[in-house]
Amino acid sequence: ELFVITYGALVAQLCKDYEKDEDVNTCLDRMGYGIGIRLIDDFLARSAVKKCRSYSETADMIAQVAFKMYLGVTPRVSCTSAAGNEFSLILDKNPLVDFVEELPAERASLCYCNLLCGVIRGALEMVHLAAEVTFLQDRLKGDAVTEIGITFLRKAED
Amino acid sequence: ELFVITYGALVAQLCKDYEKDEDVNTCLDRMGYGIGIRLIDDFLARSAVKKCRSYSETADMIAQVAFKMYLGVTPRVSCTSAAGNEFSLILDKNPLVDFVEELPAERASLCYCNLLCGVIRGALEMVHLAAEVTFLQDRLKGDAVTEIGITFLRKAED
Repeated sequence: ELFVITYGALVAQLCKDYEKDEDVNTCLDRMGYGIGIRLIDDFLARSAVKKCRSYSETADMIAQVAFKMYLGVTPRVSCTSAAGNEFSLILDKNPLVDFVEELPAERASLCYCNLLCGVIRGALEMVHLAAEVTFLQDRLKGDAVTEIGITFLRKAED
Repeated sequence: ELFVITYGALVAQLCKDYEKDEDVNTCLDRMGYGIGIRLIDDFLARSAVKKCRSYSETADMIAQVAFKMYLGVTPRVSCTSAAGNEFSLILDKNPLVDFVEELPAERASLCYCNLLCGVIRGALEMVHLAAEVTFLQDRLKGDAVTEIGITFLRKAED
């Protein structure tokens, strides 16, 4: 809870700093990236997982090990492209928004949890996987679930 | 670790926003206060502790239950005034600075963990205890330990 409330304070601070939602989103993503490239070491050390051999394994690892470890929830994973490089992490419950009731009307374009996208992107980059990570659905915006899309950009190297 | 690194990102952002260390410290304290007044409900619900009957019990509760619950460490507590209203929480290890090597020279007055003071102050206020909470020693500044001073400002009401 300390993390969740502190995260809220961070977003509120950025909303003071930047007028445009897009700038807050970019800043959260950039901060998340910085966190991800540092967090990966902790993740690899604590999880003692083996190297993933496919995008599908990687997506499962993010959902079942990393989300569980750091956020205490396990998103469902679905592959959303025939090419097998696009995945969705679907969260019925997002612990990061536990204390958020709804976004204020003037912040309708804010991706409140955008830090998470940056964290995933940064962490993946450190294991040599380039990816685009974005929110596709967000319960804070009235969607039924929260959905994070991960698109791997090139073949995993061995 | 996610919290610790995210906290670092928050402090870095504030250092961008405010030139003076004092302003960053004030902002961290203020944010912490906002966190504390919300976190207290979570703390009371999860800890199921009974009402403290003295300042000494309160200080022990903060150290042994709250710090343990949210930061995973248990500071030593010492009473530092004959009047029995001043206490020190002494941390040999401060998990919030795990990823901080040292403060940059131009940020010598920064109280990196000042958020904690605000959290304690805010949480105490919600149980009707006015207190001043400040860092007395900080390992980040070369001190041997990290010491948080809590001064209770008036008699606890029943």
